[in-house]
Amino acid sequence: MSELRLNVVTKEWVIIAPERGSRPREIKPQASARPPLPVHDPNCPFCPGNERMTPPEIYAQREGIVKPNEPGWQTRVIPNKFPALRVEGDLDRIGIGMYDMMNGIGAHEVIIENPDHGRELCDLMDHEVEQVIWAYRNRSLDLIGDKRFKYILIFKNYGISAGASLEHPHSQLIALPIIPKRVVEELRWSLRYYEYRERCVFCDMIHQEIDERERVITENKSFIAFAPFVSRFPFEFSIFPKIHSSEFSYIQKEEVVDLARILKETLLRMKIALKDPSYNFIVHTSPIDSKERVDYHWHIEVMPRLGRTAGFEWGTGFYLNPTPPEIAAWALREVSL
Amino acid sequence: MSELRLNVVTKEWVIIAPERGSRPREIKPQASARPPLPVHDPNCPFCPGNERMTPPEIYAQREGIVKPNEPGWQTRVIPNKFPALRVEGDLDRIGIGMYDMMNGIGAHEVIIENPDHGRELCDLMDHEVEQVIWAYRNRSLDLIGDKRFKYILIFKNYGISAGASLEHPHSQLIALPIIPKRVVEELRWSLRYYEYRERCVFCDMIHQEIDERERVITENKSFIAFAPFVSRFPFEFSIFPKIHSSEFSYIQKEEVVDLARILKETLLRMKIALKDPSYNFIVHTSPIDSKERVDYHWHIEVMPRLGRTAGFEWGTGFYLNPTPPEIAAWALREVSL
Repeated sequence: MSELRLNVVTKEWVIIAPERGSRPREIKPQASARPPLPVHDPNCPFCPGNERMTPPEIYAQREGIVKPNEPGWQTRVIPNKFPALRVEGDLDRIGIGMYDMMNGIGAHEVIIENPDHGRELCDLMDHEVEQVIWAYRNRSLDLIGDKRFKYILIFKNYGISAGASLEHPHSQLIALPIIPKRVVEELRWSLRYYEYRERCVFCDMIHQEIDERERVITENKSFIAFAPFVSRFPFEFSIFPKIHSSEFSYIQKEEVVDLARILKETLLRMKIALKDPSYNFIVHTSPIDSKERVDYHWHIEVMPRLGRTAGFEWGTGFYLNPTPPEIAAWALREVSL
Repeated sequence: MSELRLNVVTKEWVIIAPERGSRPREIKPQASARPPLPVHDPNCPFCPGNERMTPPEIYAQREGIVKPNEPGWQTRVIPNKFPALRVEGDLDRIGIGMYDMMNGIGAHEVIIENPDHGRELCDLMDHEVEQVIWAYRNRSLDLIGDKRFKYILIFKNYGISAGASLEHPHSQLIALPIIPKRVVEELRWSLRYYEYRERCVFCDMIHQEIDERERVITENKSFIAFAPFVSRFPFEFSIFPKIHSSEFSYIQKEEVVDLARILKETLLRMKIALKDPSYNFIVHTSPIDSKERVDYHWHIEVMPRLGRTAGFEWGTGFYLNPTPPEIAAWALREVSL
């Protein structure tokens, strides 16, 4: 029997319809036969030695004294060569008849996670994942100062179904002059919840998940990963800091260690359980101008792309998920590492 | 130079970033080499002669005296064998701790558009497309009477990237006990617009499109098809009735003729221009309980799936589209039929 579940933070309804998983498929999704990648690809603009193929770096972690834009880095951040938004210029909002427009001011950066072409985030050593998180944090803190920006969006597209166009392990950061709609909604409804209950909706969610346990995938001292009660996609999961905090970039040193561990572990569990799927993750954090908020809680959303996008979801904001999150969490928990 | 455009009806921002279209792609999207299909497939549950492979029909158009569930139909509607929602039972809404749930009551039907396995909607004769539209309308009118339902969702998934699992040309109808979120939003903001301007936001949009012409693909007496100023996806387009009407199922006989023609023509233009892409379309109409509304305007959204889903859109409600709608409309207009 299927269930309709309501996301109390976004007001989205999801149908959890396990029976749909067993329907016949004449048209088979592509098997994701991802061949192993070499350690170094001479044609890859993100590989060491090819630093001149990218715009000059904005940030890099290096051991010892090494010149910028030379090999020797651990993590490297560059402007996106094909940016969605440009950093130069003033913001200008105009109307065209009944329509509204703004020129495309913003920053679009690429975080090259590691010099190794063939090792994905989940294959890295813990301390290497920490470096990636430090890069996210340091770039965020730098961009927060720019008054034209309202939101820092950090995300990763892995694999072609997730929108990646280059293989070398990388994530992206976009500084936006607007607040993305989903964040606006999360803020609106989590504020309503707070006004009514005087508690953070996400803190309540974490407590209920820890109590019930059936959707928890793993946890450590500072973080918990669980499949949300209202999962829009099969095997989607979220990572939350256990201690309330609204802003990712305020993350503390010890928390970086724990976040690196849980992120790596969950991505690895997903890779094994789902045979190296394409995926996206997105860091949800509060908008730039807000101070630490009692009613919002930053988190990371991870969404594998399992080739089952029944397309009406795009047009309706109404989702059909054949895999109950309780089953997804169980499968991810059972993977032996 | 990229632009940020605001959808005044959904409050979504879209980046129109033409330069992104030219970035290098190591990972190539699959070429959509769709082989032609046979007229009849003996294993297809939707083909004539195989009526016993599906649940008994709910509705069919037949010429002359032919028994139900036998060959001889032109369009046939059956319950989905693997329904997302079940039609039997009472609605029950309960809380589980902080979460909200409802049992999965609803109707889920399949509209088999034509007996021919190999002819898609855009390959049919005009009068055959009209039959499909009559099936949508008649099934809607029938389900509207059920007090448990709040919304009738009519949509089509074509091709695997769009979520189709069977090849035989078909569309789907879901009667829902809730109103999908995107519709709630469209209603909210179009009402605000009406309160302020005393005009329908979509009527204003149609007038501006007719004035400017650069996003119009085609039109006839009753309908217009254009690429929306705020297109979230490359080559998405919408079809609107020119005369204000909030509810699809009130469509008149003459309008059915015009809708069939414009739907067929635009799908054919898309098929030729984009080499037979996967696509979804969704009928946006007002919720069941509302009478004819001055502030809402029904329409059909058509979204080709061009394998460029940069996945962060799912998590942010913020879209990046490399193809300006002005270019998309031009390309679709230029196709010679």
